[in-house]
Amino acid sequence: MSDGLRVLPVRGLPDVREGDDLAALVCGAAALEDGDVLVVAQKVVSKAEGRVVALDELEPSERALEIAEGEDRDARHVEAILRESARIVRVRAGFVIAETRHGFVCGSAGVDASNAPEAGTLVLLPLDPDASAARLRDRVRELAGVTVAVIVSDSFGRAWRLGTTDVAIGVAGLAPLLDLTGQLDRAGYELHATTIAVADEIAGAAELVMGKTDGVPAAVVRGLSPEGDGSAQELVMPPERDLFR
Amino acid sequence: MSDGLRVLPVRGLPDVREGDDLAALVCGAAALEDGDVLVVAQKVVSKAEGRVVALDELEPSERALEIAEGEDRDARHVEAILRESARIVRVRAGFVIAETRHGFVCGSAGVDASNAPEAGTLVLLPLDPDASAARLRDRVRELAGVTVAVIVSDSFGRAWRLGTTDVAIGVAGLAPLLDLTGQLDRAGYELHATTIAVADEIAGAAELVMGKTDGVPAAVVRGLSPEGDGSAQELVMPPERDLFR
Repeated sequence: MSDGLRVLPVRGLPDVREGDDLAALVCGAAALEDGDVLVVAQKVVSKAEGRVVALDELEPSERALEIAEGEDRDARHVEAILRESARIVRVRAGFVIAETRHGFVCGSAGVDASNAPEAGTLVLLPLDPDASAARLRDRVRELAGVTVAVIVSDSFGRAWRLGTTDVAIGVAGLAPLLDLTGQLDRAGYELHATTIAVADEIAGAAELVMGKTDGVPAAVVRGLSPEGDGSAQELVMPPERDLFR
Repeated sequence: MSDGLRVLPVRGLPDVREGDDLAALVCGAAALEDGDVLVVAQKVVSKAEGRVVALDELEPSERALEIAEGEDRDARHVEAILRESARIVRVRAGFVIAETRHGFVCGSAGVDASNAPEAGTLVLLPLDPDASAARLRDRVRELAGVTVAVIVSDSFGRAWRLGTTDVAIGVAGLAPLLDLTGQLDRAGYELHATTIAVADEIAGAAELVMGKTDGVPAAVVRGLSPEGDGSAQELVMPPERDLFR
């Protein structure tokens, strides 16, 4: 049992603000190594990118008022969710499950009030989380001289299971899916249609050391030696295969 | 970055057969420590428990023939899936998404031909995976004198994301959900409705070192110091909250 993975929290990061050089903050807090997977919580990526909106700037639409009506919900918050949504999947009791502009299906289209920089603000998903991941990767290489893979992670609910798990919404320097189709199992039988969402499993592993309350918005997964490259878009179920629209 | 988790593959396990003492096999291959989370793939748990069925023993029903008709599917395999299903959620192109007797929604009701002990057999989910986990936990304590948590894991697909991730279908010695409701984030705001499915994230982390083809059906996650106790049933979305039935 000497090999395997390490999952290491990146501690000591300051509060992240718009315009911060997130890669520099991470490199200052963690000794990254070649082949590491750096997982960064969407919250701090969005804050550094200024993807924050003030409730006061939002004028709720008819639809937002309708959804918030009679529920313990701020219609302006619902309005932010609607603006971030490409498609509403379900609405119940003021809670919206939506498809984001990136194709991700999640609660509130990824709009979040907790961990916002100040009261009365909301944090939105990055406009292009793959690009965010790629920028972080390039900047880490520049600053620390090491080649890492980067995952931007967020906490998503699931259709039939309670609780959230962290998944990859942006990826750089890593193939998010491991396709075993055509490979043989131990007994020599083909593993039909076995594709593993490794990027999501890595994001979930990182969450175990990040926590939500104690200000650890990044973690390093060491020992994977990630191969390939790709986009978190590969993790999105294509509409023609989506049985739960 | 000195603390954090280790995720260690348990290598060198032999092929598991019905009646095998799985805990003894694991204890022979891995030096378990107090506070470890031992993750064991459902496949080997089911095999040890004899949850294997021969295709030849299955007489396809009308419904099974109907689903398999015109698809590249063995109607007897479909029959096994129907028998393991409490409810059919979706059927498309011979592929069945079903709710199992345990309440888990997954492809083929967890019935799998790959990694089966021999050609023409199928592996079914354990009848009571929580009980399987508890038995393994008790037996590890007996054999190795250490107290571990145990997760029985399986690879599930997701409604809107491609690829499978490993999740917990049985749990012992660990609270599968971490409920942060009422806790405050770094800025002092309450984290509304934040419940993390840590057991699923642990199962996914373990998958990263287990692989599907190389005969590593168990892994140890070290450094979590699991608290509480619970059942994988806590991870099942209650019907009244299920928006995707």
